[in-house]
Amino acid sequence: MDDQYISGTRDNGDQLSSLYGMTPKVEAAVIVALADGHTRRVRALVSPLHPADQADLIGRLNTPQRSRLMKMLGPVLDPDTLTYLEEDLLEETLAAIGAETAARAIVEMDSDDAIDIIEELDDEERDSILASMPAAERLIVEEGLSYPEDSAGRMMQREVVVAPAHWTVGQTIDFMRGQDDLPEEYYSIMIIDPARRVLGQVRLSRLLGKQRPVRLSEIMETVAQQIPATMDQEEVAILFRRYALVSAAVIDDQGRLVGMITVDDVVDVIDEEAEEDLMALAGVSDVSIRSTLMETLQARLSWLMVNLLTAVAASIVIGLFEDTIQRIVALAVLMPIVASMGGNAGTQTVTVAVRALALRQLSRATIMGFVLRELSVGFINGLIFAITAGLVSYFWFGDMSLALVMAVAMLANLVIAGVSGTAIPLTLTRFGVDPAVASSVFITTVTDVVGFMTFLGLAAYFLL
Amino acid sequence: MDDQYISGTRDNGDQLSSLYGMTPKVEAAVIVALADGHTRRVRALVSPLHPADQADLIGRLNTPQRSRLMKMLGPVLDPDTLTYLEEDLLEETLAAIGAETAARAIVEMDSDDAIDIIEELDDEERDSILASMPAAERLIVEEGLSYPEDSAGRMMQREVVVAPAHWTVGQTIDFMRGQDDLPEEYYSIMIIDPARRVLGQVRLSRLLGKQRPVRLSEIMETVAQQIPATMDQEEVAILFRRYALVSAAVIDDQGRLVGMITVDDVVDVIDEEAEEDLMALAGVSDVSIRSTLMETLQARLSWLMVNLLTAVAASIVIGLFEDTIQRIVALAVLMPIVASMGGNAGTQTVTVAVRALALRQLSRATIMGFVLRELSVGFINGLIFAITAGLVSYFWFGDMSLALVMAVAMLANLVIAGVSGTAIPLTLTRFGVDPAVASSVFITTVTDVVGFMTFLGLAAYFLL
Repeated sequence: MDDQYISGTRDNGDQLSSLYGMTPKVEAAVIVALADGHTRRVRALVSPLHPADQADLIGRLNTPQRSRLMKMLGPVLDPDTLTYLEEDLLEETLAAIGAETAARAIVEMDSDDAIDIIEELDDEERDSILASMPAAERLIVEEGLSYPEDSAGRMMQREVVVAPAHWTVGQTIDFMRGQDDLPEEYYSIMIIDPARRVLGQVRLSRLLGKQRPVRLSEIMETVAQQIPATMDQEEVAILFRRYALVSAAVIDDQGRLVGMITVDDVVDVIDEEAEEDLMALAGVSDVSIRSTLMETLQARLSWLMVNLLTAVAASIVIGLFEDTIQRIVALAVLMPIVASMGGNAGTQTVTVAVRALALRQLSRATIMGFVLRELSVGFINGLIFAITAGLVSYFWFGDMSLALVMAVAMLANLVIAGVSGTAIPLTLTRFGVDPAVASSVFITTVTDVVGFMTFLGLAAYFLL
Repeated sequence: MDDQYISGTRDNGDQLSSLYGMTPKVEAAVIVALADGHTRRVRALVSPLHPADQADLIGRLNTPQRSRLMKMLGPVLDPDTLTYLEEDLLEETLAAIGAETAARAIVEMDSDDAIDIIEELDDEERDSILASMPAAERLIVEEGLSYPEDSAGRMMQREVVVAPAHWTVGQTIDFMRGQDDLPEEYYSIMIIDPARRVLGQVRLSRLLGKQRPVRLSEIMETVAQQIPATMDQEEVAILFRRYALVSAAVIDDQGRLVGMITVDDVVDVIDEEAEEDLMALAGVSDVSIRSTLMETLQARLSWLMVNLLTAVAASIVIGLFEDTIQRIVALAVLMPIVASMGGNAGTQTVTVAVRALALRQLSRATIMGFVLRELSVGFINGLIFAITAGLVSYFWFGDMSLALVMAVAMLANLVIAGVSGTAIPLTLTRFGVDPAVASSVFITTVTDVVGFMTFLGLAAYFLL
């Protein structure tokens, strides 16, 4: 086995290894050199790596190896590496390289990267790095931090290339050629009026295809999407995806240009938001592969505690039928089937609903169709599994009435699963609660309680 | 309530509605105009909309409204709308506008968009549209379709702006100005040698910042990441995220440039892959909010069938202890608690593992730490909930031995949940099975069987 990552798709392992600078061989060599205290070898191994690979290497080491690496690397560590580090590793790394080196590295970055890094730090570290920065850069970062967390104002870069609409293509190119502090990466020039209101944008690819005398006003796209700096990053991502945007102007509440968001900034947000939903549905919050044991425990405990409460609620329902179970013990054998099928069907519906809500696919026009479809699915699946589970019960215990009770309870629970699987996320949303976080608990509680109640209740009524 | 989408974040509804062209008011007006058969009104309402909004509108209508809209719009429908439609709506829309109009629209697009659309169609429709296309464009699309589904070859656009390394900035800009079939959107010029091998790339933003006599060889970035056309799109997305790429060259097996992938193509892939994992973990496959009832049923049935089998397996375990339950009916009341807690803890671990695998975060160096952490979490949570559930049982049934059995079974099941929650996805991956798809079934089977077995087994041994 020669792939460096445990990966689901193994076919092109060979091609892959040549695309990633960080191979298991490099990793092993660095670890040996670290153990030997061989500073020159470590530097020779690390310095040719892409900053992303240097960040990856840092993540692969354990804590003592990491601090030794930092000491040995010193100035050889590429400052860009900071932008690729995950939060937990970032703090450790900044502490290791010291506030002054960190501040020097951060000043070199575009403002969105700088803010990305500084917002992850705790107050003390943040202050010590800000204090080491020149006043102008510090001001920019502090202004960025004044926007709410996860807002467009935090995502955006302040460095925007702007031009008035009456400029020609030639004038614009000459102007840009004369600048020496252009942003590292941008795809459009924003066209503004004297009050810094955005009139449109011109993509660089379009600018380059036009003759020098052409005026920007003739080739600019007048894009409707201007993003308020306070907009939540999730909304920004949705807007970018919906309109296939590449760059968008960010404006303040007076409609003046304050920055720009580009599609590459949005990639991370999309990934973050999808991960949040996935984790929330499974009852796990805010973890990384390197979270400490304590952090991981905290992230899991609260959900398990809630689950214990709901499980006890379901058990209380069972407790109501102790007599019935004592007389017909087959009920105890069969009852988890009803609850489990309901829980699974409900989770399916909840997941589809949460995803549709996250993608803003449920409009008032489509919502009725969605609810009706889920209800029908619940009913048809209910019929199918009522028959199947009824047959299983009949052949197992040879009791037709028991089989009928099983069938009716199954049908009821799967219909309830469909109804509450849509109703719960929609209701949570209406009350401003993130449906991804709370839906799973509610749905399993409902299907457990309803499942046990109908099955044991019907049994108590008809079989005794 | 005036927001158009049922949305989790409601704060800036006002700002939002101005950013989306498709408002509930427009929707309502279009529906009225459609019902009145008022063609001119429909066209007046739809034509100012952004193609993405036109696509959204199409999605909000029901099928009869949709076909009426197509007939009324005719040539007013912006061809770009096709690129924004979801698969199911796309087929309906293409059928409504006819193969020739569709072919004319597709010829205008960049090749990646054209292939995106054509690959969604069934064979018959595909052939009829291809037959209506000019030979040159047809060839490009057919070549694109020759790459495997979900590969880099399908994602890429064939239109790439290339230049030799010895050209100057001025020469390059003059050349581009002379071209009239430049791609719609690109961010870099690829620098190639006479054999079309990629030497590096020059970002447009960099090109524009340099003096005319500067040679491309002096300013090009020599990027190591060149993507084989057969690479899976998931790997492409990981590569883009890892190295924060904006454009990457796609090469054939001889290393020659065949196309280019840009970050905006990757956005959709990231979203698609995250959705696949989310849905797979919940046992739902390949659905959209508009899937028919039949498609939805199929997507859910197989998983529920598997779940029925595992639930029956758990019930068989319970069946082994019928006598025990008949004598101590409290066992029937308490046993779902053990199983449910194990299932939830296991799902938490599985989800974290699946996500880490998807992001290629588990290297051989970090994997042991991850397994150990999950094992410790299982053990500590096991102790906490052994005590809690033991106390609950004691106060409920006043039986210390029963409480002890509960505590031990809970501890055992949460440890097993931690162990198998990591072991199952890792093992599935090793055998080339997508861990997102199969892990959930396995983990709940394990925790149900182990939960009932230890709880009832211990009870049979110690309490009778």
